[in-house]
Amino acid sequence: MIVVVCLNPALDITHEVPSVRWGGVNRPRAVHARPGGKGLNVARTLRALGADLLLTGLAGGVTGAGIEAELARLGLPAALTPIAAETRRTFTIVENGTEGTTAFNEPGPEVTAREFAAFRAQYEKALAAADAVVLSGSLPSGLAAGTYATLIEAATAAGVPAVLDTHGEALRLGTQAGPAIVKPNRDELADLTGRPLSTKNDLAIAAGQLRTLGAQAVVASLGPEGLLAVTGDGRWRARPTAVAGNATGAGDAVVAALAHGLVLGRPWDERLRHAAALGAAAVAAPVAGEFSDTDYASALSAVAVHREEAG
Amino acid sequence: MIVVVCLNPALDITHEVPSVRWGGVNRPRAVHARPGGKGLNVARTLRALGADLLLTGLAGGVTGAGIEAELARLGLPAALTPIAAETRRTFTIVENGTEGTTAFNEPGPEVTAREFAAFRAQYEKALAAADAVVLSGSLPSGLAAGTYATLIEAATAAGVPAVLDTHGEALRLGTQAGPAIVKPNRDELADLTGRPLSTKNDLAIAAGQLRTLGAQAVVASLGPEGLLAVTGDGRWRARPTAVAGNATGAGDAVVAALAHGLVLGRPWDERLRHAAALGAAAVAAPVAGEFSDTDYASALSAVAVHREEAG
Repeated sequence: MIVVVCLNPALDITHEVPSVRWGGVNRPRAVHARPGGKGLNVARTLRALGADLLLTGLAGGVTGAGIEAELARLGLPAALTPIAAETRRTFTIVENGTEGTTAFNEPGPEVTAREFAAFRAQYEKALAAADAVVLSGSLPSGLAAGTYATLIEAATAAGVPAVLDTHGEALRLGTQAGPAIVKPNRDELADLTGRPLSTKNDLAIAAGQLRTLGAQAVVASLGPEGLLAVTGDGRWRARPTAVAGNATGAGDAVVAALAHGLVLGRPWDERLRHAAALGAAAVAAPVAGEFSDTDYASALSAVAVHREEAG
Repeated sequence: MIVVVCLNPALDITHEVPSVRWGGVNRPRAVHARPGGKGLNVARTLRALGADLLLTGLAGGVTGAGIEAELARLGLPAALTPIAAETRRTFTIVENGTEGTTAFNEPGPEVTAREFAAFRAQYEKALAAADAVVLSGSLPSGLAAGTYATLIEAATAAGVPAVLDTHGEALRLGTQAGPAIVKPNRDELADLTGRPLSTKNDLAIAAGQLRTLGAQAVVASLGPEGLLAVTGDGRWRARPTAVAGNATGAGDAVVAALAHGLVLGRPWDERLRHAAALGAAAVAAPVAGEFSDTDYASALSAVAVHREEAG
């Protein structure tokens, strides 16, 4: 079983408008509301891959209740720990005319020490039956930047490999805790190393630094350029063919595929082939956390994976 | 008791951002969520005035549950009829840097005939104890444009005067049903009469047309220019002194004051003085449905009310 940790889930609300009247009143012609947050996208993708999983995390208020109701409707196995504060929303405005997208992401609820202790107890119980754990997304207010590090240490103590996808200080501290895989994107990597990453070699050096920091493997997602992996088994690149679409959630599909490949014991080249293909299939799908089997299969045969000499 | 009908309430969500990154990801530094919709603003204002009231209407889904929880917390007497579909949200972005405001208003839920029949039964029960009824705001999907007209006819049959504040076809049909007062703003009046209203006399003629259509009195709210009333007791203007602030909800404050004045049996000049003052106090308040007693009192002494000769 893969335990997916989603400490800051969201109700993702999307408004479609022909074109935005800035400074005016807009009447969206289509409204979508669905559970989101990076961990939730990972869980949905794992489920579509047929993996055995349990979604854990925190949910509060009417927004939290709405998310739990929708997870039950989707049949996604979940055990969310209740909190008093309101789960966050994200608002995305899609302009149908221009394909422009503007997002407004709420910061998330205040979580108390007592609530986190209750989550922690549920998490450790879930670890006992886990083959891997995925820690994904931002931390809500009130949780220390070292929260993921603590959860990775607990996983390691239970002999469970961890996959980490977050940013900033939580990524730095989490990496130091020695997860099996960290998956930064280009911005997160640049942010962490504190310098622009203009060349392929810059990227490889930065990914290598995260490995030095503690990660057993680093897989950087580079958008249309695919994946760059620095692992104990060498340096790899996996490049899909170009796809047009919505890149939101593509990184989460990559994380799901990496965790799935880890649990299945796939070698790195196969893990990366599947991860790059699933990322591409997610871009082609209109909604984060979804993909079509056809897109996945055709992307899989088109991904170019090769091993690189260390620079 | 004043019965306030709010068929399309909303959860009003406001995000404050320093300045919007269009096409990017924004992280609001403050998030507010509160029950809204014009009828709800009217009910809150009536309560602040000390009026006895009952909020009626429709609520569904987790958003509806959130609104009901917040009404209970505010101690606002409410009896909302449950519906299966999700109550709407409005999403407003306030740019602190420029004071610019952009709104995205969801259209509202589909209401079935059976659900509306259940509301209708609750409404007729409430009418038995009502001194006035206020019908305010847009109609959700699935309800005919003649819905307010039907509810006004039921009020008239029960001997209860009705105050109507809506727009478009619902306003036209509602006006024909003979409410005690209709309160259009300048745009609604222009929309209904089908021509631009450039001069004071144009406005007076248009308001007179609504009276001919069936309204016993018409009070047009003209923003900083105050109120123009065409009544059975002649034509009136009420002009407050200029106030800076947020005009959202000022029209709802005017409606609340008009209903309150009607129930108290105030003569037209006094009704209009209070309505214009409360509108100005609402502009000065940061949040729709609220005002400070000090602003109200000082606006009240500053409003100029005069009776006009018919043009």
